[in-house]
Amino acid sequence: MVDVAMVGAGQTKFGNHPLGLKGMWSEAIEKAFSSVDNDCLPSMVDEAFIGSIAFGGSQLGNTAALLTEHSGMDGVSVRRVENACASSGFALRDAWMTIKSGQADIVVAGGIEKMNDLSAERKRYWLGVSGDTEWERLAGLTFPGTYALTARRYFHEFESTHDDLVHVSVKNHMHGLDNEVAHLRKDVSFEKASSGAMVADPLTLYDCCPTSDGASAVILVADHLAHQFTDTPIWVKGSGAGSDKLALHDRPSLTQLRATQLASQKAYSIANVQPNQIDLAEVHDCFTIAEVLATEDLGFAGRGEGGLFARNGQGRRNEGNVTINASGGLKSKGHPLGATGTGQAVEVFKQLRHQVEAPRQVRDAEIGLTHNVGGSGATCAVHIFGRER
Amino acid sequence: MVDVAMVGAGQTKFGNHPLGLKGMWSEAIEKAFSSVDNDCLPSMVDEAFIGSIAFGGSQLGNTAALLTEHSGMDGVSVRRVENACASSGFALRDAWMTIKSGQADIVVAGGIEKMNDLSAERKRYWLGVSGDTEWERLAGLTFPGTYALTARRYFHEFESTHDDLVHVSVKNHMHGLDNEVAHLRKDVSFEKASSGAMVADPLTLYDCCPTSDGASAVILVADHLAHQFTDTPIWVKGSGAGSDKLALHDRPSLTQLRATQLASQKAYSIANVQPNQIDLAEVHDCFTIAEVLATEDLGFAGRGEGGLFARNGQGRRNEGNVTINASGGLKSKGHPLGATGTGQAVEVFKQLRHQVEAPRQVRDAEIGLTHNVGGSGATCAVHIFGRER
Repeated sequence: MVDVAMVGAGQTKFGNHPLGLKGMWSEAIEKAFSSVDNDCLPSMVDEAFIGSIAFGGSQLGNTAALLTEHSGMDGVSVRRVENACASSGFALRDAWMTIKSGQADIVVAGGIEKMNDLSAERKRYWLGVSGDTEWERLAGLTFPGTYALTARRYFHEFESTHDDLVHVSVKNHMHGLDNEVAHLRKDVSFEKASSGAMVADPLTLYDCCPTSDGASAVILVADHLAHQFTDTPIWVKGSGAGSDKLALHDRPSLTQLRATQLASQKAYSIANVQPNQIDLAEVHDCFTIAEVLATEDLGFAGRGEGGLFARNGQGRRNEGNVTINASGGLKSKGHPLGATGTGQAVEVFKQLRHQVEAPRQVRDAEIGLTHNVGGSGATCAVHIFGRER
Repeated sequence: MVDVAMVGAGQTKFGNHPLGLKGMWSEAIEKAFSSVDNDCLPSMVDEAFIGSIAFGGSQLGNTAALLTEHSGMDGVSVRRVENACASSGFALRDAWMTIKSGQADIVVAGGIEKMNDLSAERKRYWLGVSGDTEWERLAGLTFPGTYALTARRYFHEFESTHDDLVHVSVKNHMHGLDNEVAHLRKDVSFEKASSGAMVADPLTLYDCCPTSDGASAVILVADHLAHQFTDTPIWVKGSGAGSDKLALHDRPSLTQLRATQLASQKAYSIANVQPNQIDLAEVHDCFTIAEVLATEDLGFAGRGEGGLFARNGQGRRNEGNVTINASGGLKSKGHPLGATGTGQAVEVFKQLRHQVEAPRQVRDAEIGLTHNVGGSGATCAVHIFGRER
């Protein structure tokens, strides 16, 4: 079976980007290809997968082909992959499988979203439909409201309070402060994050990620080509994905994401890696409570101990066994829906190659993980990367 | 390398379907699974790919997971694939590669669209954005207008007139007349099709496919499982895909689809099959001129001879070397955008298993081809199927 190496990765700054879809995508592609140590060109790409939800009210269709046309991948077999906020996590998975299938040697996986061209109403729409519509959205439940219910239930089931979520927010803002591609680079104190404006009780502004413009892309190649392009390929050691019921009331538990559990178990098994071997994890903290649950579902903390994990600062850079969201996560780095999943992979690529400038570099990073969730947990893709094959 | 077999296939009737998305999808899945000779259940599926463009104004998101939840594929790794009208052709390709990758043994590829819940304006929008927006749609060029330009150019370059297109229309209506899942089952005479209401000169109503509701799905399995499920698996012998510039003016020729040429060359090469070995081809006749071009681009007729091919009746069932659109094609069977690609595969599955009732069965059908185009040719996926591995 073919092994898969990541040899290049790039992204735009996340935030309010001045360019439109074609400009943002071209920027991400240029950065990804220029990050490859030895010559690699978009024209060499055999297959491409582009994650996006809404394309930001651009009135453009057939957009996957439009974007590859404008980034030098003439004639390439390309499609859009859409799975709510997990779109490019699945694009990455499908790119990985494509190389493993032997049908392509050089594959691009990426994602893009233009959120700031959307009206507030359309932003709410595209986020809202990512959760359940029939039982939740049309009954008035917003996306922050969904995660607020989860947080309330978590506090009810376990010894945890909103303070634990504040710790997540403070950590992620601290991590993102020096990340030049991050959307919200703010030094946020515990006091400030504790007293944020209420969004959906108990979640305040500091518990909710922003929605961002952004594009990201990674270049995967078959094992026999890896060392042609670089001396330090990053191996995609495992990939897993799963799904769950859309509506919360259909799930056995509000405080676990079965999609994350299914995806990570599969990824760990294929990679032959244990949770305690992960040096850094980019997890899907669309809301702070989501990071607490992910910490447990990915096996970094025991059941009900995710709040304590945050309180103890165990996910802080270089302080515990694993650094959680070294990039700043969705909370600080930003969340351009369809671009988030491969954006996580861009961070892991740079971290595992030890190319991140101080103070952001995670010490001795050997193995990294990405965790990308669609909706309120209906879909999830997990990937594990390593310096060693 | 793993070979891939199709062991089940099913679809709803195309047309104005009384059910919504979940009902239509469940019907297609039930029919696909009940078509498998020996017990096969949705719960056994490892991975799923669902093609759709618009989901028909349903206000639903994260729809891939929603549909698998409602069809018994609990927890499955699933994503939506969107590539305009080629969405499920690419879903099929990605499902095929997934099995070849060794990551899954049982994979569903399908597609769905609910067109008749859309207003006329939204239908125009979703079709319009599948072509080029920046140079064409926003300048007023409609989708029929795009193909009308193509037809005019074809008549200019080659010895062909609108009569050749009428022959395509009459043939496809004749083929679809006895197809119980077809949208437009009408006996259309040459005279009638010649005098249709003008849509976009030279294309009349009889040159344009309808837009339909519909869902379709096929079940692919790895070679080692094929004979567990059936004595007559249909092998997916090859798959190819390609893309092209969206805007017509960027292409070197108006009368060839490079995406089709790239996709079919790849598929023929992998399948080790020549065009003259194809017994039946389901081609993307969104407009009659598109079938004429496909006949050439797929190698059934020489350059500029697609009109003559139609005039001579060479694509009629059992009359020439290859039967073109035995199902009735998009013209008669109907066109539920995202469901069309795997709908073509459903027809080929039944034809190659010799399970189609007279008079529709193509005689001695051994090798079949599907050709699914996105937009005005920006994307294309071609698959080749055979009774022999």
